[in-house]
Amino acid sequence: MDVHSAGERTSRRRFLGNTMTAAAGLAAVSGLSLSGCSESMRRASGQKSSQFIRSGDVVLFQGDSITDAGRDRNREGNANDVRALGTGYALYIASQLLAERADAGLKIYSRGISGNKVFQLAERWDKDCLALKPSVLSILIGVNDIWHTLNGNYNGTVEVYEKDYRALIERTQRELPEVRLVLCEPFVLRTGAVNDKWFPEFDRYRAAARRVATDFHTTFVPFQAMFDEAVKTAPPGYWAGDGVHPTIAGAGLMAQTWFSTVSHAKA
Amino acid sequence: MDVHSAGERTSRRRFLGNTMTAAAGLAAVSGLSLSGCSESMRRASGQKSSQFIRSGDVVLFQGDSITDAGRDRNREGNANDVRALGTGYALYIASQLLAERADAGLKIYSRGISGNKVFQLAERWDKDCLALKPSVLSILIGVNDIWHTLNGNYNGTVEVYEKDYRALIERTQRELPEVRLVLCEPFVLRTGAVNDKWFPEFDRYRAAARRVATDFHTTFVPFQAMFDEAVKTAPPGYWAGDGVHPTIAGAGLMAQTWFSTVSHAKA
Repeated sequence: MDVHSAGERTSRRRFLGNTMTAAAGLAAVSGLSLSGCSESMRRASGQKSSQFIRSGDVVLFQGDSITDAGRDRNREGNANDVRALGTGYALYIASQLLAERADAGLKIYSRGISGNKVFQLAERWDKDCLALKPSVLSILIGVNDIWHTLNGNYNGTVEVYEKDYRALIERTQRELPEVRLVLCEPFVLRTGAVNDKWFPEFDRYRAAARRVATDFHTTFVPFQAMFDEAVKTAPPGYWAGDGVHPTIAGAGLMAQTWFSTVSHAKA
Repeated sequence: MDVHSAGERTSRRRFLGNTMTAAAGLAAVSGLSLSGCSESMRRASGQKSSQFIRSGDVVLFQGDSITDAGRDRNREGNANDVRALGTGYALYIASQLLAERADAGLKIYSRGISGNKVFQLAERWDKDCLALKPSVLSILIGVNDIWHTLNGNYNGTVEVYEKDYRALIERTQRELPEVRLVLCEPFVLRTGAVNDKWFPEFDRYRAAARRVATDFHTTFVPFQAMFDEAVKTAPPGYWAGDGVHPTIAGAGLMAQTWFSTVSHAKA
């Protein structure tokens, strides 16, 4: 007879999933050339994305300007609408998912808003997340939490960021107990607006995001590790002109890494 | 001693390249499930795109609204500019190429214009093609040549289309003897604006495009065969709402097939 509670079983299952994800993330970014990296990503996504993404899924991308990416907010109620998805990583992921999983009836939305910090996601969470009832929810948030503090427009700390982020994820898992969460690592590249003042504080924000993913047993996409590897092939500005907002190349690489990570994650 | 002229050698090399391409196109679309298809496309593109796409390449996408895809024409002089590339297949190809070939210094442009027929490409070819000196030129043109005839706004025939197309490619190869050409098959899906009146005439336009590709020894991307396979998995409107303009899913699939075909082509 199984003496574990349902909650414990869920936790254990989630923990195993998370361990798989971490291993895949490492394999994807460490010691592989970029071309080999994306090749392995492709093979993985072709073979295994079905384990995480399921028929009938509602997929929601949430975050700040990197997710917003010029989307037409007047069309945000339309699933799979090219203008509603912006021109960033969410669109590239959508184009691949919708092409490959044509029989799955997926509904893909983006609700990223430029300038958002984690507490601002919380303020609009009922309308811009819970009401959509996503079964897959991908969040990328954090760079403004530090950036707006550095430029004097916000009085934040890494402790506030982590506390707010934990509260948001706890609320989400309570309201949507079946949701499969994908937390994306905040990242910067050392160019443009990103100077020495960002460090080492920014690394603490990244570590906080990873802790939240680990503690809540979500999938974690290691974007900073990916870009740290990418700058060995082309300079930081090739991937993000101002160090924060990805170019086509940067967003394309993010889409590949998101796929690779999600493909290795257990649902 | 080689008795073949330089021109004959070039033709022979091009013929072999074309044969490879045709075989790859068939493999990509015949008898494979879509997921298997895209998996093989991914493997191919990861391994072989370097044979066709080279360091320093200037890649130009040309065509009609399917290539235009809402691009910002005020930015068309900027290479690798997300707003200059629209939100269609050209952008998805660019996101993948720029991510994977970060060390190649690629410059990617789009100059598709909505409503264009092949003679209208010719009218703006000096400015919108030859002046850019592309080393890789991908063209998708033809659907308006028949559509505007069917709706009474143009007095075209398939003979005019083929004659104009041949003249355009001949001029391009004369002015840019080293250019690697990718001709894309015009396609429609039987939904929306596309009714029985289109057939069998439309098949003659497709055949003409294929003849031009064969006779000028260019790479040929079999988009119609791809969509004919795709509608076995999801209905025509999933891929192109009006039967002509691809959705995100349709454009995503086009990008994958373009990659697959180009990856198998010899430069």
